[in-house]
Amino acid sequence: MAGNSFGKIFKLTTFGESHGQAIGGIIDGCPSGLELDLKAIQSELDRRKPGQSKIVTQRKESDSVEFLSGLFEGKTTGTPIGFLIMNTNQNSKDYSHIKDVYRPSHADYTYEKKYGVRDYRGGGRSSARETACRVVAGAIAKQLINSIEIHAFTSSVGDIFLEKPYQSLDFSKTETNAVRCPDPEVANKMIEKIQSIKKDGNTIGGTVTCILKNVPVGLGEPVFDKLHADLGKAMLSINAVKGFEYGSGFCGARMTGKEHNDLFNEDGSTKTNLSGGIQGGISNGMDIYFRVAFKPVATIIQKQETLDKAGNIVEMQGKGRHDPCVVPRAVPIVEAMAALVLADFYLINKIYN
Amino acid sequence: MAGNSFGKIFKLTTFGESHGQAIGGIIDGCPSGLELDLKAIQSELDRRKPGQSKIVTQRKESDSVEFLSGLFEGKTTGTPIGFLIMNTNQNSKDYSHIKDVYRPSHADYTYEKKYGVRDYRGGGRSSARETACRVVAGAIAKQLINSIEIHAFTSSVGDIFLEKPYQSLDFSKTETNAVRCPDPEVANKMIEKIQSIKKDGNTIGGTVTCILKNVPVGLGEPVFDKLHADLGKAMLSINAVKGFEYGSGFCGARMTGKEHNDLFNEDGSTKTNLSGGIQGGISNGMDIYFRVAFKPVATIIQKQETLDKAGNIVEMQGKGRHDPCVVPRAVPIVEAMAALVLADFYLINKIYN
Amino acid sequence: MAGNSFGKIFKLTTFGESHGQAIGGIIDGCPSGLELDLKAIQSELDRRKPGQSKIVTQRKESDSVEFLSGLFEGKTTGTPIGFLIMNTNQNSKDYSHIKDVYRPSHADYTYEKKYGVRDYRGGGRSSARETACRVVAGAIAKQLINSIEIHAFTSSVGDIFLEKPYQSLDFSKTETNAVRCPDPEVANKMIEKIQSIKKDGNTIGGTVTCILKNVPVGLGEPVFDKLHADLGKAMLSINAVKGFEYGSGFCGARMTGKEHNDLFNEDGSTKTNLSGGIQGGISNGMDIYFRVAFKPVATIIQKQETLDKAGNIVEMQGKGRHDPCVVPRAVPIVEAMAALVLADFYLINKIYN
Amino acid sequence: MAGNSFGKIFKLTTFGESHGQAIGGIIDGCPSGLELDLKAIQSELDRRKPGQSKIVTQRKESDSVEFLSGLFEGKTTGTPIGFLIMNTNQNSKDYSHIKDVYRPSHADYTYEKKYGVRDYRGGGRSSARETACRVVAGAIAKQLINSIEIHAFTSSVGDIFLEKPYQSLDFSKTETNAVRCPDPEVANKMIEKIQSIKKDGNTIGGTVTCILKNVPVGLGEPVFDKLHADLGKAMLSINAVKGFEYGSGFCGARMTGKEHNDLFNEDGSTKTNLSGGIQGGISNGMDIYFRVAFKPVATIIQKQETLDKAGNIVEMQGKGRHDPCVVPRAVPIVEAMAALVLADFYLINKIYN
Repeated sequence: MAGNSFGKIFKLTTFGESHGQAIGGIIDGCPSGLELDLKAIQSELDRRKPGQSKIVTQRKESDSVEFLSGLFEGKTTGTPIGFLIMNTNQNSKDYSHIKDVYRPSHADYTYEKKYGVRDYRGGGRSSARETACRVVAGAIAKQLINSIEIHAFTSSVGDIFLEKPYQSLDFSKTETNAVRCPDPEVANKMIEKIQSIKKDGNTIGGTVTCILKNVPVGLGEPVFDKLHADLGKAMLSINAVKGFEYGSGFCGARMTGKEHNDLFNEDGSTKTNLSGGIQGGISNGMDIYFRVAFKPVATIIQKQETLDKAGNIVEMQGKGRHDPCVVPRAVPIVEAMAALVLADFYLINKIYN
Repeated sequence: MAGNSFGKIFKLTTFGESHGQAIGGIIDGCPSGLELDLKAIQSELDRRKPGQSKIVTQRKESDSVEFLSGLFEGKTTGTPIGFLIMNTNQNSKDYSHIKDVYRPSHADYTYEKKYGVRDYRGGGRSSARETACRVVAGAIAKQLINSIEIHAFTSSVGDIFLEKPYQSLDFSKTETNAVRCPDPEVANKMIEKIQSIKKDGNTIGGTVTCILKNVPVGLGEPVFDKLHADLGKAMLSINAVKGFEYGSGFCGARMTGKEHNDLFNEDGSTKTNLSGGIQGGISNGMDIYFRVAFKPVATIIQKQETLDKAGNIVEMQGKGRHDPCVVPRAVPIVEAMAALVLADFYLINKIYN
Repeated sequence: MAGNSFGKIFKLTTFGESHGQAIGGIIDGCPSGLELDLKAIQSELDRRKPGQSKIVTQRKESDSVEFLSGLFEGKTTGTPIGFLIMNTNQNSKDYSHIKDVYRPSHADYTYEKKYGVRDYRGGGRSSARETACRVVAGAIAKQLINSIEIHAFTSSVGDIFLEKPYQSLDFSKTETNAVRCPDPEVANKMIEKIQSIKKDGNTIGGTVTCILKNVPVGLGEPVFDKLHADLGKAMLSINAVKGFEYGSGFCGARMTGKEHNDLFNEDGSTKTNLSGGIQGGISNGMDIYFRVAFKPVATIIQKQETLDKAGNIVEMQGKGRHDPCVVPRAVPIVEAMAALVLADFYLINKIYN
Repeated sequence: MAGNSFGKIFKLTTFGESHGQAIGGIIDGCPSGLELDLKAIQSELDRRKPGQSKIVTQRKESDSVEFLSGLFEGKTTGTPIGFLIMNTNQNSKDYSHIKDVYRPSHADYTYEKKYGVRDYRGGGRSSARETACRVVAGAIAKQLINSIEIHAFTSSVGDIFLEKPYQSLDFSKTETNAVRCPDPEVANKMIEKIQSIKKDGNTIGGTVTCILKNVPVGLGEPVFDKLHADLGKAMLSINAVKGFEYGSGFCGARMTGKEHNDLFNEDGSTKTNLSGGIQGGISNGMDIYFRVAFKPVATIIQKQETLDKAGNIVEMQGKGRHDPCVVPRAVPIVEAMAALVLADFYLINKIYN
């Protein structure tokens, strides 16, 4: 009810605040006998971790995951997988200036009103640090459904868009640049944009696009738990997300049925794929693709007016170490959440086959 | 698991196919002592029902809801509310031509692959007829949270957009025209558009915008069950939806932090509202607004090629009675789903206060 | 949350009051392609229905179940199965005498305090009439897991016990007598006992024993959802149940480890079965057996003192048509609940195999 | 689905094996602002921990709980409470002799068959060590519902019964002896019994009785989630439990309605309390009492025959450090589980009031 769990069969529950001793989670429902590649898990975490490049926050965290249960002689045992990531580089004094202040467009105000208390250090539970736990679970989910390919990448930063159709992209290049855009030329422009924004003490939004290939036909449940509805919820649960569209998305709303319908080939595949690989909430075997909008990070270094607990408007200046653009580090998080949704439906599907 | 339930506390489970004897549902978790206005419930159903105007399907259904339990002397008793809506005007023979054929961009193919069998008449369970049950439950939810205002309306049909800011709209006009656009001038253009599309035997997409006013501060759970994540899932679970955005949405992804941040007033309200009334997944007391994209209806009257069960490409022509544009009838469904999400979080919030 | 659903994968949600228009339910999660034997379902309902013999209540209800969805051409489609049982013989005026009175050892008082209102007619939602819906769902579950045998029977009425070991019983005789005891001689004593109690205007308790044969190894989840824990909850959720034990049960608490341990045969079966077919919450392939204690029905025809809403102690006399002993009609309910638990774990197990 | 979570609102998820690095859990849904008495939590753990007296296992574990999140300046914040208990004294080599052997009446065989692999050291996940996590969560639940009194105690060991009515007991004496029986004389007999059994290398079963006082009227949900059904499931989920009864229990099945009915006093309390404080699944304000049967521990030091993986019957002799009787250490576990059930229903009840 309190919303710290995700998934029905492959179920992740997370805990932890940005500046507590550790964050961590429990994965319940992972099948037994899965040989886990622990390096691959750590490598996903490394893609998300702070301090990895000049265009992300300079907070240094090793973000090493430690598994406490559910593994025996390298394999999952079917029992819950408990794991920890220690917080090692929290500068809590960085945050004393916000103890009595609600930062604009942050969760400070709403947490305070909802709970009466809040751990203000580094955003506490509302910090995107929590997503490290999702990346751990997502990395395990990826290994479970390893025949499915999941490719997320930065598709825009501010007004700089990657306009090529995804079919023409070389996903092996996504990890070759700091912004995680598979087109090196566009990547450079994005990086320049972020650097210039950072110099201004400002931040900028962007989008992540994600492609799911080789999804078996039949994933997703009709009515409320449609595959795209659960993907949408998963993405909208990531910090800073403002929108989700799949297939033709908002463009589809401007089209006619004749334009939009995907005609079949004889093998059940379709000639076009405006549907985005999902019909009636159920995967049809074509590529699934969706786009996620991230707002600019709220913490800016420039001075802003804000509100204190006593109800006064006061001036504040951002401190701490923050991302000028959340999108590069969001790429592995989007993949992780997609993997969690797919793993869940993949396991649900085994019930009925 | 099979996805026919929605909500955690105020929980709706639905059943029924388009051409079965009846559809219906059970609402579990509605508090006792709520005096139900049954006419208001029927009136919401009438907004969704087929045959109400020239721009929607001409299938005639009375769509009268019958309550079988959970009410005693006009009040809810705290026990589950069972309800039925009879199917009276199903022309099943309209569908014999699709028995062995998968209509393009429909759920025919994916249902067949997932379940091995399907009730092909009128789309069976994949028909939007199921949403009538959501409207019943949403109408009860509206009565439970009656201090919150919920205003959905058609904000675009194809390329015809309602461009005025929502603050300038008179929502009392939404129901004065067949397309449910609160600006009569734009409404006329939308209606003309739909009529011309219909004449062509084609269909067209559109968007619905929804405004939630007077939402108390504190609704929504952090992390996975963010208010906007659950709203997003609710909307994406409606038939034909391809996208969801709230607050600044996809536009927000092009902005800088300085532009996007909502500065506070002394009373905790904000000067701007690009956040869309939600911070960190929790309502902040400002208006919540979001936009939902609907694709064009897949059933067109024009001839199309399609696939039959035997794997042959065959020509088919749409029959039956269909909507040329789903958006006008989607308006009450969007409201119903929003009401279900709000009711759920409203009740969850009572646990902690 | 409000407790009207049972099961995780094979999930039943019920609605309905004793004297409303109908009771019914939705089964969500039944796999597709199951050919349903509707007569077998009705026949289970007939075992539970009132008026079937002289030793049960004389209320006459046809208890015919009507399926509204989820079936197509005789097979399940994977979509939710909605069903109704009309209430036809409710004598609501029988209950006007209890409108303002709380019957001793009934749910009248607690419902009133919890909900503020209650449908007092026939016990409303607290009536065991609700269990008819469980029998419908249980009958479908039985067909899903039809290789498992489920044999419940009356094992005691008051002080009359069926003392033979279950291995020596002929379950084909259970349905040959009104009390549902597979030993005809003991059955006769039980029937006499109930008749004499009924003549006194009194009621009597009893126990039901249930044997599950051919349960595959591996059903049940460790820790909280142990197979016997879910069986226990299922049984304790039946009206009038006061206790549950499985395997050695309360007797086991008097034994030593040496006496109690079940030594293995070479094929993994065990020489004894004090464990009752479950080890660590997981079925081991041996027979599962458990015993359920039912209290005497609270409604007696003899005069009793009771409390009215105004806080006065008043004399009341039972009216209406009631069971002198609930146990004979409880037998099919125990079987139905066992089938629901087994079907759920059977489907969960498919996830992991 | 995999069964490692308990509770709907106040929800505990646990992880950890007997001989892993640590066990732990996450409590989600604890309200914010609760000032936690950490010493009281540790003190509950100390009641359960091994090595506390001569009649329990001599494994030495400090069982110190460490909280990693959800607390700020001594108070709960409404975010998930993550906690760890390190395993410090595991003698894994004690278990090498059972690596390829299934101990009689243990979960070894069923885990192996269900999962294909198992962490055999100390029983792995099937070890009662997991219950330490329940005691932590239960201790927090107790603080949340601190107006309710929870008194569990040992009511029998083998054939030695505490026969006095609970109303005559002095619960302050429960903790004054190693067996946790509030009657010192009976306690001594129980302790002697356990010591003599231990000397034989044997083990013995027993029962725990639990009394809940000052439970507010209205806890519990009708139909499937009756208060006693959830208490029953909670107790049956504890290792080694074979039975549960509340109120009149199995004795009630031998009584008549006239004997069994609890007549009202004018204030709504009842003159007798055979109902055990629950009517129709909902608490009525009277004392709730129930009894839980524990089988003898399966690990005995005497030689036994057993089965190895290769399918041979082999002789084995128990090693390791084990409890001769599980009941004294089960007392705090029974209380913890009762507290979890009550906390859950207490919070659910806030929704509707």
